[in-house]
Amino acid sequence: MTTSLPRNASADQLAERLLAGDRLALARLISAVEAGRPDARHTLRCLFPKTGRAHVVGVTGPPGSGKSTLATRLAMTYRERGSTVGIVAVDPTSPFTGGAILGDRVRMMELHSDPDVFMRSMATRGVMGGLARSTLDVVLLLDAFGKDVIMIETVGVGQDEVEIARAADSTVVVGVPNLGDDIQAIKAGILEIADILVVNKADLAGADRLVADLRTMLQLSTTAPRTGWTPPIVQTVATEGSGVSELVDTLAEHRAHLETSGNWRVRRAESARRQVRAIVEDRVQRRLEAVTAGEEWQARFASIAAREQDPYSVAEEVLSAVADLHGQ
Amino acid sequence: MTTSLPRNASADQLAERLLAGDRLALARLISAVEAGRPDARHTLRCLFPKTGRAHVVGVTGPPGSGKSTLATRLAMTYRERGSTVGIVAVDPTSPFTGGAILGDRVRMMELHSDPDVFMRSMATRGVMGGLARSTLDVVLLLDAFGKDVIMIETVGVGQDEVEIARAADSTVVVGVPNLGDDIQAIKAGILEIADILVVNKADLAGADRLVADLRTMLQLSTTAPRTGWTPPIVQTVATEGSGVSELVDTLAEHRAHLETSGNWRVRRAESARRQVRAIVEDRVQRRLEAVTAGEEWQARFASIAAREQDPYSVAEEVLSAVADLHGQ
Repeated sequence: MTTSLPRNASADQLAERLLAGDRLALARLISAVEAGRPDARHTLRCLFPKTGRAHVVGVTGPPGSGKSTLATRLAMTYRERGSTVGIVAVDPTSPFTGGAILGDRVRMMELHSDPDVFMRSMATRGVMGGLARSTLDVVLLLDAFGKDVIMIETVGVGQDEVEIARAADSTVVVGVPNLGDDIQAIKAGILEIADILVVNKADLAGADRLVADLRTMLQLSTTAPRTGWTPPIVQTVATEGSGVSELVDTLAEHRAHLETSGNWRVRRAESARRQVRAIVEDRVQRRLEAVTAGEEWQARFASIAAREQDPYSVAEEVLSAVADLHGQ
Repeated sequence: MTTSLPRNASADQLAERLLAGDRLALARLISAVEAGRPDARHTLRCLFPKTGRAHVVGVTGPPGSGKSTLATRLAMTYRERGSTVGIVAVDPTSPFTGGAILGDRVRMMELHSDPDVFMRSMATRGVMGGLARSTLDVVLLLDAFGKDVIMIETVGVGQDEVEIARAADSTVVVGVPNLGDDIQAIKAGILEIADILVVNKADLAGADRLVADLRTMLQLSTTAPRTGWTPPIVQTVATEGSGVSELVDTLAEHRAHLETSGNWRVRRAESARRQVRAIVEDRVQRRLEAVTAGEEWQARFASIAAREQDPYSVAEEVLSAVADLHGQ
């Protein structure tokens, strides 16, 4: 189908092959983007006009809510309906090793054999803002590749993750009965970013109560009157696939609502703002890393520890150094 | 004891009262710092030389691990031993409301009546890096106030939270049996920042297995050979207070180890680096917020959504604008 891909292919060469439908080129370009390879930046710029067609779906929820299983089932249902699917799983990561912990999921193995599903686990690389930047870049690549639906799966905790979830066109927040106080609290925190609420493991005792609680919370929400969309609550048992078809229908309804209401444009502009910020934050972070790694600065940090200087004054100097740094 | 505090007291006036032991002044200065009041910045600079004495203890673990209860019990035990305590609880927050969700905890009510315990829940205010910055500022204020032990309680997920946990002198990572795959994975991610591992709810079946698993993971860790400290595993039942006294002893041992090994200095220099970075990130974030809020930029974001411009080129322009912006 395709001629062989040189090992040292440039990002632009990879992009050309990606547009021709080459999965290997897609995978390698994703790696180049994640690694922050300088030539990938220009390539993303060139690919950008070829994007915007995919329906970007965020799937977020606390650990233990079964969202990976749900995402897998969603992907299978989309495939049955003839849509191609990309999945970007954003994993909690060790800041030391830089490696993804959850890794590719065994339970997603069956999807792996489908050439029209592309899955990728993201690592944070210990860089603030970098996760959001690289996740959105990968979504862009999947979009340019032609995927109809791109799912971003995140643990719904932490600022970065909320940023990522909000970059989606439609955000599905997954809750589950009986997870205890803390988790309910987290769910409340991400409730406001939900376009669709899923009560997973709906066969468990306590599911009805969670649905009732969520309804109460939705009544208190100030978002629905503003957007004209009240988040529906869909009950699923992801392990058995029940409710998943209804969820796909609801996602289609949400997309249709965005388009007819004009909110699609508003939302995509807001996503663009988030993406621009993520890129800027990533760049600043890299500069900050480069500046503070120098030996003279190590001595400054030691003198702060000894209370000879204060961190606020040193921060001012770092800020100037970061602002002065051009290029990378 | 103290004369009345004027409502419009300056940050410097509040600092003076704080150093004289005025709790109300402490609380108001914390609010000023959290809100990013400009005069508070100068005050923090002046207070900084008066800090460095407290033992800063991070308590981190997944939702449902019982870490709030453990922190409460730790505080009570420290009080029994005559130490004064500050607790900073870092809560997951709605990015919309800016308010803390968990709020002050009912189960900490009994501690509230103790004048030598000071508790504060932090909100993220939707600002990247801002949470780390303001949390470390509050720790500094509690330190200047004279607290012997300052606990930072965080949910151990997300980059910001890991940053915060690593700013402590001693980091306690709390695990709990039978929480399912995802949570174990997160725990593995924060295992590497643990100075002490706690298996809470140690009376549950499965606790022995978790202890065994953690021991195996510790053997694979590369941190211990470098620092000369192998994280001990302490078993607790926080609801009953069992194991908590041993945990306080272990924390004292860790502090003694840091001091005799010289790692204290290394670690505090590293903390200083993290604090400087948090301050810089917060400042950049505020500038970024100010720059991108302007109307002309909104039009740019809309044109990105329409694929007329690309986010990477616009990000370059924002970066220049952020670097040019002086002052705030």
